Amino acid sequence: MTASLRRKTYRQLFASSRTDGRLTLTNRLLIAVVLISVIFAVLGTEAALASEYRDIFIAAEMTFGGVFLVEYVCRVWSVAEKEGSETAWRKRLDFIISPFGLLDLAVVVASLFPLLVTGAPLFRLLRLLRLAALMKFGRFSMALRELGHAISERRYDLFVTLALAASLLLFGAAALHWAEGRVQPEAFGSIPRAMWWSIITLTTVGYGDVSPITPLGKILAAMVALSGIGLVAMPTGIIAAAFSDAMQRHRERTVSAGQSGR
Amino acid sequence: MTASLRRKTYRQLFASSRTDGRLTLTNRLLIAVVLISVIFAVLGTEAALASEYRDIFIAAEMTFGGVFLVEYVCRVWSVAEKEGSETAWRKRLDFIISPFGLLDLAVVVASLFPLLVTGAPLFRLLRLLRLAALMKFGRFSMALRELGHAISERRYDLFVTLALAASLLLFGAAALHWAEGRVQPEAFGSIPRAMWWSIITLTTVGYGDVSPITPLGKILAAMVALSGIGLVAMPTGIIAAAFSDAMQRHRERTVSAGQSGR
Amino acid sequence: MTASLRRKTYRQLFASSRTDGRLTLTNRLLIAVVLISVIFAVLGTEAALASEYRDIFIAAEMTFGGVFLVEYVCRVWSVAEKEGSETAWRKRLDFIISPFGLLDLAVVVASLFPLLVTGAPLFRLLRLLRLAALMKFGRFSMALRELGHAISERRYDLFVTLALAASLLLFGAAALHWAEGRVQPEAFGSIPRAMWWSIITLTTVGYGDVSPITPLGKILAAMVALSGIGLVAMPTGIIAAAFSDAMQRHRERTVSAGQSGR
Amino acid sequence: MTASLRRKTYRQLFASSRTDGRLTLTNRLLIAVVLISVIFAVLGTEAALASEYRDIFIAAEMTFGGVFLVEYVCRVWSVAEKEGSETAWRKRLDFIISPFGLLDLAVVVASLFPLLVTGAPLFRLLRLLRLAALMKFGRFSMALRELGHAISERRYDLFVTLALAASLLLFGAAALHWAEGRVQPEAFGSIPRAMWWSIITLTTVGYGDVSPITPLGKILAAMVALSGIGLVAMPTGIIAAAFSDAMQRHRERTVSAGQSGR
Repeated sequence: MTASLRRKTYRQLFASSRTDGRLTLTNRLLIAVVLISVIFAVLGTEAALASEYRDIFIAAEMTFGGVFLVEYVCRVWSVAEKEGSETAWRKRLDFIISPFGLLDLAVVVASLFPLLVTGAPLFRLLRLLRLAALMKFGRFSMALRELGHAISERRYDLFVTLALAASLLLFGAAALHWAEGRVQPEAFGSIPRAMWWSIITLTTVGYGDVSPITPLGKILAAMVALSGIGLVAMPTGIIAAAFSDAMQRHRERTVSAGQSGR
Repeated sequence: MTASLRRKTYRQLFASSRTDGRLTLTNRLLIAVVLISVIFAVLGTEAALASEYRDIFIAAEMTFGGVFLVEYVCRVWSVAEKEGSETAWRKRLDFIISPFGLLDLAVVVASLFPLLVTGAPLFRLLRLLRLAALMKFGRFSMALRELGHAISERRYDLFVTLALAASLLLFGAAALHWAEGRVQPEAFGSIPRAMWWSIITLTTVGYGDVSPITPLGKILAAMVALSGIGLVAMPTGIIAAAFSDAMQRHRERTVSAGQSGR
Repeated sequence: MTASLRRKTYRQLFASSRTDGRLTLTNRLLIAVVLISVIFAVLGTEAALASEYRDIFIAAEMTFGGVFLVEYVCRVWSVAEKEGSETAWRKRLDFIISPFGLLDLAVVVASLFPLLVTGAPLFRLLRLLRLAALMKFGRFSMALRELGHAISERRYDLFVTLALAASLLLFGAAALHWAEGRVQPEAFGSIPRAMWWSIITLTTVGYGDVSPITPLGKILAAMVALSGIGLVAMPTGIIAAAFSDAMQRHRERTVSAGQSGR
Repeated sequence: MTASLRRKTYRQLFASSRTDGRLTLTNRLLIAVVLISVIFAVLGTEAALASEYRDIFIAAEMTFGGVFLVEYVCRVWSVAEKEGSETAWRKRLDFIISPFGLLDLAVVVASLFPLLVTGAPLFRLLRLLRLAALMKFGRFSMALRELGHAISERRYDLFVTLALAASLLLFGAAALHWAEGRVQPEAFGSIPRAMWWSIITLTTVGYGDVSPITPLGKILAAMVALSGIGLVAMPTGIIAAAFSDAMQRHRERTVSAGQSGR
């Protein structure tokens, strides 16, 4: 009977044991708990909230820590059901020292013993990474893999675009350093300083904390800003074409599979 | 004769009774009235205008309210012509408690009795939603449905992009909170505060009301800003590919329909 | 001999008389003169330059005016060579009262008699429109027509996107008016005022002259800014797909033309 | 034996002598040295760093100069192995006066004798151009050529978009000059001044150093900002379609090559 319960626990916790690629109820609940715990971790950094609702935050952290601890123990216990000829304890050790196992443990410790870990508040954001583990299966992860595949096929194109963008960033910064360095030494007195301006301009963010004031500086900056359009258009175009290409091939595969099946 | 008039009214007001999918003259006029009434509602929130042309605004509101009231009564009256075996009053009740019927009623009340409704000025913007009902048929709605269909086919890809973007937003905010939290507690003193910065930066809006001032903060912010390009490029690429794919299939369908018709 | 010279002049000035769609030497020279005259018109609005180099500007304007006058007279004279059974003077009158003829005349008058025309400096920018007439033929105009055609085929999709964008602009402005209207009456005191903010935010320009300061306003503004990504991604995606589709059909047409030609 | 060493040196330094298009170990090392030397050149413009670590910077510059000098000498020596019937010295002279040869020499001089060259710090950024020469071969350069090819095929479309964008920039600047010129003479007092605003707005950078303050100016600026979306969407769409088209043809070529090979 224990074996049967362990088997069920394993199926619920480790989604890969399901064949249809859907998330189990337990996984869905855990994802919800992780998301809520991340929201609490984020809100907890706001001093005003953290001090006013101190008890609620401590209670919540303890609850999350408890849930993650129980989940961790269940995982270590039930992983013995994993397929393979190793002994149960060997499988457990493999899980404990796997990246996901260590992440789970780190999350438990950061939740239950905040005083042990320096920077516990930021450490708690690691929970977000747990989502990657929990959603490792199913359609979302398939979509992620497809996106990654389409992009990696065009990695040389994207690398070339990146190299052009980096050169543009550097030459733009050098040009503005040359044109404005004497007038605004604080902002353009060196190329590294001017790069802050050139990155914020080429990404079209444009805070306006630094901007050229001389006519020559403005003419050069206008040219840099205009080429910034290409900086956005090129990778967007490559990615769009890559996705379009991937869908096209997917359809052609489906069609030719249908024809040969006839 | 009344039945014939009721029939004509029904055809004019409920565009779905036409088969060619074009808007009736009455629907076009109503769309124009709705658009003008929205412009009046918007301008009416400007105190200077509202007090100077007080009489015009009140007269306009009464007129719009009158038109919408007449339209509402006509709709309730003529909906009895709808196909179906229910009694005329049953059809009328169905219309009155349908979402569009309730919206029409709400618009009439907000126009004619502004004192009855709290926040009537904002309530009047509901008229804009009436457009959705009025334009429910015809080519625009077909285009909307096609766009929605193309996007919904790629919903997993878009969801993955969204999840990546949300993680980027959160980690960017956490990084800047860590780097600038002590120097600018007002802007980066907690992760929720830093998220305002990270959203305004990643969407490339860049107001400049908050921006990092330490070298470390600027380096991290530059990295966040650069990854913001991907945040825009990824969904654009997916949407472009989805639309391209939809058109492609549309053409293939047309071609194969033409071939089998030969 | 005069007829032969008139014929040559006609061929040089009216590019449509050439069959290969390339610009004649005279047209190229005129385009260069127009571009230079636009640059002078632009620089002439800068008071410091205009007063320091007063003589140069006046001489330049007289020269441009002279060239345009000679060109105009030549056009009127040589248009008699146009194909058609009308009399020479009838053809000339047709040219004079055609939009391009009137534009040419207006440009001559604005150049030579600046005192006659109110706002002559801005009037001179009309020269830029002459470029459209001069480049009406050849590959550039073909590319323009193709771009226009691809976009007009997707006009319903683009209209729907525009309508969604307009609603977003309006509801965003209404939301911020509601959240910040009391705190910042100057910037958000009415919906029309708030629309300045909402347009500058949704286009991701983000001057930062107005931005929300209350927590609620920031949350709403963050949502508006995030949806601004879609506002850029949707039309870009539609246009990319439309262009891609146009090229695809062009290739298919070429291929099938090649096959039927075999 | 010297000939054999010279042959090996040639193969290592001039990647085109390899047939598989991969970079040689020496080329990879040189790329690394160039990148590091660029970083040093960039950091060296920061006065605070340059004076504190003066010795390190001088030593680094000497080292880089030494490496580049040795490389240059080796290139001149080994280029004699190049295929062709010219004498060894003729080949050497050809290399020395080739653009890459002159660039290499300029980089050596700017590194070793900074006092000889005015503006040596900026001159050192020329090293970045050396990367283009070092990476001339292999997959990256193939990707660059493909991107360039896809874009150059659509050059008329892109030119038309550019011309439209330039007109928009000019008319936007003229409109704001007309609306705001009297109120803000410093920012909008002439069309060239207003063009700074119009470029920063249309590229969606939006520093906020200049922005309209009158209602009319804001309405015109809002229209300019909205059309700025098209300014980004059009080239992105064209580039995406061009890349998509290039991939499509590449696949079709591959497929038809496979079929005819059967």
